[in-house]
Amino acid sequence: MTELKGERSDGGSGTVGERSDGGSGTVGERSDGGSGTVGERSDGGSGTGLGRELGVAVLGMGTVGTEVVRILRDNADDLAARVGAPLAIRGIAVRDLAKDRGVDPALLTTDAEALVARDDVDIVVEVMGGIEPTRTVMLRALDAGKSVVTANKALLAEYTGELADASRRARADLYFEAAVAGAIPVIRPLQQSLAGDSVQLVAGIVNGTTNFILSAMAENGDDYEVALKEATRLGYAEADPTADVEGYDAAAKAAILASIAFHTRVKAADVYREGITGVSSADIASAKAFDCTIKLLAICERIIDGAGQPRVSARVYPALVPLKHPLASVDGAYNAVFVEAENAGRLMFYGQGAGGAPTASAVLGDLVMAARNKVHYGRGPLDSAYANLPIAQIGEVQTRYYVAMHVLDRPGVLSTVANEFSSRDVSISTVRQQTDHSEVGARLVILTHHAPDAALSATVEALNKLDVVTSVSSVLRLEGTNE
Amino acid sequence: MTELKGERSDGGSGTVGERSDGGSGTVGERSDGGSGTVGERSDGGSGTGLGRELGVAVLGMGTVGTEVVRILRDNADDLAARVGAPLAIRGIAVRDLAKDRGVDPALLTTDAEALVARDDVDIVVEVMGGIEPTRTVMLRALDAGKSVVTANKALLAEYTGELADASRRARADLYFEAAVAGAIPVIRPLQQSLAGDSVQLVAGIVNGTTNFILSAMAENGDDYEVALKEATRLGYAEADPTADVEGYDAAAKAAILASIAFHTRVKAADVYREGITGVSSADIASAKAFDCTIKLLAICERIIDGAGQPRVSARVYPALVPLKHPLASVDGAYNAVFVEAENAGRLMFYGQGAGGAPTASAVLGDLVMAARNKVHYGRGPLDSAYANLPIAQIGEVQTRYYVAMHVLDRPGVLSTVANEFSSRDVSISTVRQQTDHSEVGARLVILTHHAPDAALSATVEALNKLDVVTSVSSVLRLEGTNE
Repeated sequence: MTELKGERSDGGSGTVGERSDGGSGTVGERSDGGSGTVGERSDGGSGTGLGRELGVAVLGMGTVGTEVVRILRDNADDLAARVGAPLAIRGIAVRDLAKDRGVDPALLTTDAEALVARDDVDIVVEVMGGIEPTRTVMLRALDAGKSVVTANKALLAEYTGELADASRRARADLYFEAAVAGAIPVIRPLQQSLAGDSVQLVAGIVNGTTNFILSAMAENGDDYEVALKEATRLGYAEADPTADVEGYDAAAKAAILASIAFHTRVKAADVYREGITGVSSADIASAKAFDCTIKLLAICERIIDGAGQPRVSARVYPALVPLKHPLASVDGAYNAVFVEAENAGRLMFYGQGAGGAPTASAVLGDLVMAARNKVHYGRGPLDSAYANLPIAQIGEVQTRYYVAMHVLDRPGVLSTVANEFSSRDVSISTVRQQTDHSEVGARLVILTHHAPDAALSATVEALNKLDVVTSVSSVLRLEGTNE
Repeated sequence: MTELKGERSDGGSGTVGERSDGGSGTVGERSDGGSGTVGERSDGGSGTGLGRELGVAVLGMGTVGTEVVRILRDNADDLAARVGAPLAIRGIAVRDLAKDRGVDPALLTTDAEALVARDDVDIVVEVMGGIEPTRTVMLRALDAGKSVVTANKALLAEYTGELADASRRARADLYFEAAVAGAIPVIRPLQQSLAGDSVQLVAGIVNGTTNFILSAMAENGDDYEVALKEATRLGYAEADPTADVEGYDAAAKAAILASIAFHTRVKAADVYREGITGVSSADIASAKAFDCTIKLLAICERIIDGAGQPRVSARVYPALVPLKHPLASVDGAYNAVFVEAENAGRLMFYGQGAGGAPTASAVLGDLVMAARNKVHYGRGPLDSAYANLPIAQIGEVQTRYYVAMHVLDRPGVLSTVANEFSSRDVSISTVRQQTDHSEVGARLVILTHHAPDAALSATVEALNKLDVVTSVSSVLRLEGTNE
């Protein structure tokens, strides 16, 4: 059945560059179309006739890579039937050859670049992480016409443009569903399902470590440090938790989500970022009193600037979320992405955002798609950055605020404090005053209506200068309300 | 920039049939590749250079069709940039030409078949509904190489195989995200994101009418008839609500979901079906007492038969769902689809499952994808039915049960009743007995552990023959627990 066995030219890098050119050599076209036909016949029928084997290079064999290799082996028959051709691992790039990984040692190599360049490699699965040499290896792979599936959010948040351009030039696919929210389909829905809609807002709980910590704080009344220690003990936080708790991981994901949702290239550096280390158990308790919980949110929003023009705001920070909002009940290591679009309305995608098997599931979904495209001469999603909207500064973003402060317990304090808000057009929604046992004074918590971030910042600066204010202990946003 | 203006051969039906053949004419290949190049250049750059206009035929101008036409007009520039070519409506097939629809009357036609056959139509959007002549028109369109986007669940639940075969033969795309759960991406995640995983369970709230009615019953304590009347008044139920309340609509969606999730062709007739007309306010109250709510579920499950072989169970019925299950809080006209897969774990997709704009959003997403494929010579998802699993009968499905009955209020009744369960190996989990004010007797409600449906049916039959049982008033399943 596979008349073209061993003759397919599209696995080699030589003709790939030409295929993206409309007037390219007829030979390349013909051999491609031919292999497509083999797949056609196999997929529609009994599943017995398959196309020529496709070669897969796996870069990295950590938690995710190990699961990818396991699933490729355990589910080989199903995967072959779904692709229309068997998938064969040609090699696995690792750092340490000596470590026993339960795979044929002949597959292991430390030379990722040589592995992806092999003629019998059609698709590269990148789960090694890091910026370099990963970026160079991926570009080499794409330039050589190999499709790439990656889970590397940090790399994508910085170099999506470069990688997308390389993939387009070579007519090779670039898939990265696993880079954001693990097993939860969110890239594909934004990129494809909502391709005919106008996305207004993407708000995600996209970091399992911080969600575990904040959930534990809310559930047990733990302080941040206690909850972090528990997260580390259970393996939800790394030894150095900075990337998670300071919001860098979420910011990279926000950049990727914003880029897709708004057809604009957004990089991690464009994302305003605050971590959760400053969130206190007192904040969580106050949030509860306002019927809210606190979540680290990655928010991508289309806002209208002073001149009436659309801009993209991408920001990551801990925020109060009303308990009745769908995101409020996403607890523990679960992730969820909430989307508002002009016509679709409100959508939410929920599931496991991390872990070896869930992330590998997303990688395998992309791998099957990339492989099907090789068999059927299909085409994966294309980078779309035509809108090229300007990035909004945090100062022009409007949200509601939660401001907690310690004040002197004397008459007229509330009036003095309230004046600092109103004089900057920041309208107060709710005030709660509690006797503060730790100091001689009171704890004042204020919720505002929507106001520009710049006005709020100026207000906080002024509050800190007031004699009656001992300290502003916390400034958080309130998201998910329309008031 | 568009050197090939008016010369593209892939819009016409003549060469399309040949393109799926690998050894096809070079002319077709070349002209396709050329138009692809135009799109390539336009999409990556400033968005100013677009490929040749693509023609769209819209079949039907009801609630969804009207929104599709509106969005095509209002968002024309964005859609063109995303596709890489402008989309132009060539015609709209309607039944009544006289009705004012706010569009250029010259676009309207009653001849859908002639419309889809036009050389300048590349993509057909089918939102007219019904089985015939819709099926014939869609097959004509696909045979002529036109890609088809449809929201027609009833047609797909019966004829997916035939339509998919036609689309494969002609290398034309067949998209149908809008057919299940409106704006919620669920077809694409199952078909693509989970393509490398093994789906175990899909459990969906996929009918807004019944979910509105059951939510109203749970919230207000209303009887079914009262809640139905309110749903009709608010436009959530049609004048003849049979298709919704008897579960036919959900069964068609279950067939589509099961087909995709399990790579097996499942038709509506394969789906076991019960509606919600028998659900009483007493059932809802009893469910609450068990910390449950009642939802109409479309369940697609991979089960293992007595011989250890996998089978597909597809079933629709009202079921008790624990309040802590993510599906329990999906209220009103919202829809949600819960998925369990071997590696991805538990996922849920939530959003608006019906309505003009949300459904049109899903249609437009598919339309942009189909159009991009025309520009970039891509390929949409392919029907996959290789697994061809046998369909399980309802009798072999194991669930937990809720059985409510009226019994005589005399000693020994519970023991007699319990014996009928235990003698058929149906293990009882919880019993609640209430004095029944409406009759001389008591209301007995029993929750069982997991048991085969056949054993439960036999038990209920035996209960009905007991002198001490006045009547078995309700038999419902309990889903979403692992006990």
